[in-house]
Amino acid sequence: MGGLENGATNNQNSSPTTTKPTKTGLSPDSMINLDQGDPTLFEPYWRKVGDKCTLVIEGCDLMSYFSDISNICRFLQPQLGDALKRLHRVVGNALTEDRLIVVGTGSTQLLRAALYALSSPADRHPVSLVAAAPFYSGYKDQAEFLRSGLYKWEGDAHTFDKDGPYIEVVTSPNNPDGAIREAVVNRGEGKLVYDLAYYWPQYTPIIQPLDHDIMLFTFSKCTGHAGSRIGWALVKDKEVARKMTEYMQISSIGVSKESQIRAAKILGVLGEGCRTADSENFFEYSHSILKERWERLRNVVKNSRVFCLPKYPRDYCNFTGKYMDSNPAFAWLHSKEDIDWESRLREHKIIARSGERFGASPKYVRISMFSPPEAFNLFLERLSAIIDNTIGNVVT
Amino acid sequence: MGGLENGATNNQNSSPTTTKPTKTGLSPDSMINLDQGDPTLFEPYWRKVGDKCTLVIEGCDLMSYFSDISNICRFLQPQLGDALKRLHRVVGNALTEDRLIVVGTGSTQLLRAALYALSSPADRHPVSLVAAAPFYSGYKDQAEFLRSGLYKWEGDAHTFDKDGPYIEVVTSPNNPDGAIREAVVNRGEGKLVYDLAYYWPQYTPIIQPLDHDIMLFTFSKCTGHAGSRIGWALVKDKEVARKMTEYMQISSIGVSKESQIRAAKILGVLGEGCRTADSENFFEYSHSILKERWERLRNVVKNSRVFCLPKYPRDYCNFTGKYMDSNPAFAWLHSKEDIDWESRLREHKIIARSGERFGASPKYVRISMFSPPEAFNLFLERLSAIIDNTIGNVVT
Repeated sequence: MGGLENGATNNQNSSPTTTKPTKTGLSPDSMINLDQGDPTLFEPYWRKVGDKCTLVIEGCDLMSYFSDISNICRFLQPQLGDALKRLHRVVGNALTEDRLIVVGTGSTQLLRAALYALSSPADRHPVSLVAAAPFYSGYKDQAEFLRSGLYKWEGDAHTFDKDGPYIEVVTSPNNPDGAIREAVVNRGEGKLVYDLAYYWPQYTPIIQPLDHDIMLFTFSKCTGHAGSRIGWALVKDKEVARKMTEYMQISSIGVSKESQIRAAKILGVLGEGCRTADSENFFEYSHSILKERWERLRNVVKNSRVFCLPKYPRDYCNFTGKYMDSNPAFAWLHSKEDIDWESRLREHKIIARSGERFGASPKYVRISMFSPPEAFNLFLERLSAIIDNTIGNVVT
Repeated sequence: MGGLENGATNNQNSSPTTTKPTKTGLSPDSMINLDQGDPTLFEPYWRKVGDKCTLVIEGCDLMSYFSDISNICRFLQPQLGDALKRLHRVVGNALTEDRLIVVGTGSTQLLRAALYALSSPADRHPVSLVAAAPFYSGYKDQAEFLRSGLYKWEGDAHTFDKDGPYIEVVTSPNNPDGAIREAVVNRGEGKLVYDLAYYWPQYTPIIQPLDHDIMLFTFSKCTGHAGSRIGWALVKDKEVARKMTEYMQISSIGVSKESQIRAAKILGVLGEGCRTADSENFFEYSHSILKERWERLRNVVKNSRVFCLPKYPRDYCNFTGKYMDSNPAFAWLHSKEDIDWESRLREHKIIARSGERFGASPKYVRISMFSPPEAFNLFLERLSAIIDNTIGNVVT
């Protein structure tokens, strides 16, 4: 699910520039925002692809509320359903056979649809919602902001010991730390929602096609098209899919058709590009960008006596047919020093998100690896300077 | 707000066809669905307009989450904001000066954003939500489906007598009955949300530009583009707009950009068409369709000793510069007989929505005036037959 939450801003240039800005408006004293996961760095690929992804919509197209009234999710454009099935088959990251697809306004809306579908209005007590720490900071906001009586955020799955029904969100690869995960609580009354936003080959080796009851994906993190707000759920149970669709209906009477047919087109081109070897496919392109960024970041951090980064096992990727590294969308920077790193980085004009927001210590901080190139370069320069100034374990 | 709610289906042909179907798939024994307000009947106009409304989107366009980070509603595409201001100025239905625009996934999402913005999480008790009966049936569903502790549906504003803060939704023209409305409760602690989905010249004379604190509109009912899921709020107070945007952020991280730029284009063409007199503008076209349907329906109903329809005052329309009738999107059919008309009409293969769903008696029934032409014709035939069979007040 998205790396974007309430209260953050995308202003890469929020301080007055007293020195010459670069072409992106950044100057050496600009604030750089690495709080969010706005994946615009993949844009050059889609520019290069040209007309194949161009969408033309006439004024009289797509006017009805409905897309396919024979489908449980009657808001789903059939061409999007088809493109999603083809893509999952090509990538091999999730089983789609005998699943229902529910489309959402991003996977954000779908998570709440799943909570609605898995909770029981008849129950006097709300169902507990948990995720293993460090967990995506947005889950808590989403569970709490309407003070719903259907579900209650109970925090870290590792320490959850309440009796009764519960829902565990399993985020794999995890946001913020990139780890591959399984369920933690494992009790009979539990229901699981897998948030697989980052289970794509640019971020992590595709080990196997996953086969869970509810699996959430998002267009944003697959291709970088965050502005389209398209997410999808692969759902085994018909009644759960029906209730998730009911949620969509009551909360927004469906999902933008324009975005759906655009996602269908782009995901179709992506899937086709993976099957033919005549040019670099999107996953190769995005993987190479992230890999280079991770190498440069690791090179900076390795000189540090203060910081460290998670290590990820090299694994065989069924999609590429090679052993691959993980290159997550976020760096989960950990310091040995007992310092609030969000505040400290902010003094150095780097906006990142404190570990506290993810149910962890403020000694952790999450850094988006998705920033524009100039912002990423400036980040590495500033991080190097911080590290150079902390050689004797004295953090300035 | 939309005429579409949970549980309804759009199947115009749900019974097996034993006789020859028409080109829309309707046969004399097809069920016809007049439950919903799916405004596809305006499609021919947009087909006729041709290339002016055609939208072309490249694969690399619109990728970021953000549209304008200098705006409180940073998800709003600037060209949509501009088009909306121009259109409201041309039509004269709402003031936009010194207002903030918040975009939503339909006005459905915006109503809940407004409830979030106007309620106080610090309060121990939920704020009361009311609307004068007959009220849009979706308000209750939207207020209750998540069992929110922020607000509580209290039903009919006319009978509301609880102390404390409340929110009144004022729907004008009203869904289901087309009446022009003002607030009913009028107490100091009250906050008002105006749902103005149908305050456009095809439905009602535009008497004055409205000037309320929160005014909701939707693309669906303005032009018929329901599939785009675009709504907007005109908001006076900055803090309310900020909280409504926060709601959008937590619930769906913004609103489809593809739909926004398409709405901007189509609403721009619509506004431009109203300023030049070289061809029929959309409001003239849609008004003439609805006017003709209403005349035909009134002709059928006038023979009835059982049914009656609301009468609307003829009023001077500032937009057209003429005295005009109202031609609402729904017919609010009232019977003098004490009969559950939803059930009775269903026996005659007409799906409509009972008055009970709107906080009224089952002697009322809401009929969508938006159905495809063949369905509307068949409806009038069947209604005539029902009326012919009830001459002596014996309803068969």
